[in-house]
Amino acid sequence: MNQVAPYVHKVQYYETDKMSITHHSNYVRWMEEARVDYLSQIGWDFDKLEATGVASPVVSLEVHYKGATTFPEDISIVVSILALKGVRLTLGYEMRNAAGKVVCEAKSEHCFVNREGRPIRLEKDCHEFYQALAERIVVTEE
Amino acid sequence: MNQVAPYVHKVQYYETDKMSITHHSNYVRWMEEARVDYLSQIGWDFDKLEATGVASPVVSLEVHYKGATTFPEDISIVVSILALKGVRLTLGYEMRNAAGKVVCEAKSEHCFVNREGRPIRLEKDCHEFYQALAERIVVTEE
Amino acid sequence: MNQVAPYVHKVQYYETDKMSITHHSNYVRWMEEARVDYLSQIGWDFDKLEATGVASPVVSLEVHYKGATTFPEDISIVVSILALKGVRLTLGYEMRNAAGKVVCEAKSEHCFVNREGRPIRLEKDCHEFYQALAERIVVTEE
Amino acid sequence: MNQVAPYVHKVQYYETDKMSITHHSNYVRWMEEARVDYLSQIGWDFDKLEATGVASPVVSLEVHYKGATTFPEDISIVVSILALKGVRLTLGYEMRNAAGKVVCEAKSEHCFVNREGRPIRLEKDCHEFYQALAERIVVTEE
Repeated sequence: MNQVAPYVHKVQYYETDKMSITHHSNYVRWMEEARVDYLSQIGWDFDKLEATGVASPVVSLEVHYKGATTFPEDISIVVSILALKGVRLTLGYEMRNAAGKVVCEAKSEHCFVNREGRPIRLEKDCHEFYQALAERIVVTEE
Repeated sequence: MNQVAPYVHKVQYYETDKMSITHHSNYVRWMEEARVDYLSQIGWDFDKLEATGVASPVVSLEVHYKGATTFPEDISIVVSILALKGVRLTLGYEMRNAAGKVVCEAKSEHCFVNREGRPIRLEKDCHEFYQALAERIVVTEE
Repeated sequence: MNQVAPYVHKVQYYETDKMSITHHSNYVRWMEEARVDYLSQIGWDFDKLEATGVASPVVSLEVHYKGATTFPEDISIVVSILALKGVRLTLGYEMRNAAGKVVCEAKSEHCFVNREGRPIRLEKDCHEFYQALAERIVVTEE
Repeated sequence: MNQVAPYVHKVQYYETDKMSITHHSNYVRWMEEARVDYLSQIGWDFDKLEATGVASPVVSLEVHYKGATTFPEDISIVVSILALKGVRLTLGYEMRNAAGKVVCEAKSEHCFVNREGRPIRLEKDCHEFYQALAERIVVTEE
């Protein structure tokens, strides 16, 4: 099982706001960038996923802002798989600045749907993808 | 105490994504729009708030997506004050489409800082604003 | 022929940048908002346009920034039809702040395509829409 | 004089729209990303520029869309200096997809201002930066 490298997002000027810091809505977009990159690294890039017809819309988000960031910082994002139940996937995100300080912790919950937008059970309907996720679930004491 | 009208956001074309629906990150921006409008309606528009030197950065978010929306729908957003403790404000958001269906439920948590970015206790440092918020706290059985 | 009212965009906090002004990329999005509103006012709202199967992608843009704006200003945008040739539509935009000062002047050029993305000649393929645009072409000495 | 490498922007999912392609407003943001990267490569990263107190707001834009792009394509952007007059800088942008096809050509015009937002003459007020730009002006037959 290959090691997954953190995703790095360079904060852009257009992502800042009049407080001179990154506007908080952008972290939600970085979560998506990091998620796409993570899936690609574990062998499920967008083209492959699309070919299977499986999409995984966001069902809920939880974002905790721990410290401000701004242009032109590099933010390093570690994605982890927190849970994978029949119809739900929960991902975790830890974002750090160049100094190693955690600036944001977040979670996203996803369901799985087919091309018609109908909910599917990943384990049954796309077993190979299910396996790739399942074997990477993080064991926590939470 | 004046009644607060729901805030209406018209979904824009540029807010949609390749699933033909509103990209989920935009709801976080609508929360901000609705929040600013709510504060303005209860007598605390941005200019007045800025004159007092109080800012209220987002500390955390929780967003639950209940149904897709898309351009050019009108989304109606009701903001409510869920809690106001010494240094924290929690706001709730209920978003409905034109048919009245709830499409998103969310919360945002805020702290209060002064012009130097130092945390302040709202009750002590900006009592008038504290009062305006405190008298609108929603009583729930949650 | 009905009179078309200016479109008003309220600058949002998330549209500002670390210069404390509206980030310049947002004006391009306001052009789209104003364009959609203009078409709706002349009887061609998105649903009607979509039903005809005609889309009008942006072919080129020209934007001249004349003065800064910021949250929470109201920007008033007047759209006008500058030209309508066989396969091209050129729109003009004049944006003013509350004091009446012009803050941005812009143009967008569009082609017309059908549902398959193939270019069409509007006059022939969707005459009613062509007419609605043609009768509103602004005569200028430019 | 060091060679400047093209800037690569990976199209993000959140940059697409309901036509399933990149929304046109995002190219304006990529221009900024590429510009910042270009200046950094020629020795003028943001921190150094900020230390001199010189900012270069966008005065005008011209964007020609030549072909659609979408998530998750890599777009390669070559920036060039087209002109540098007393108070104006004109930059050119050529964007290509992975197949080498030009998907967008654009220009941006900038002025120079000091920390107080007052216009400055770059040649006189920040000669070193002026030199770095001037020696890279592209000679064209246009």
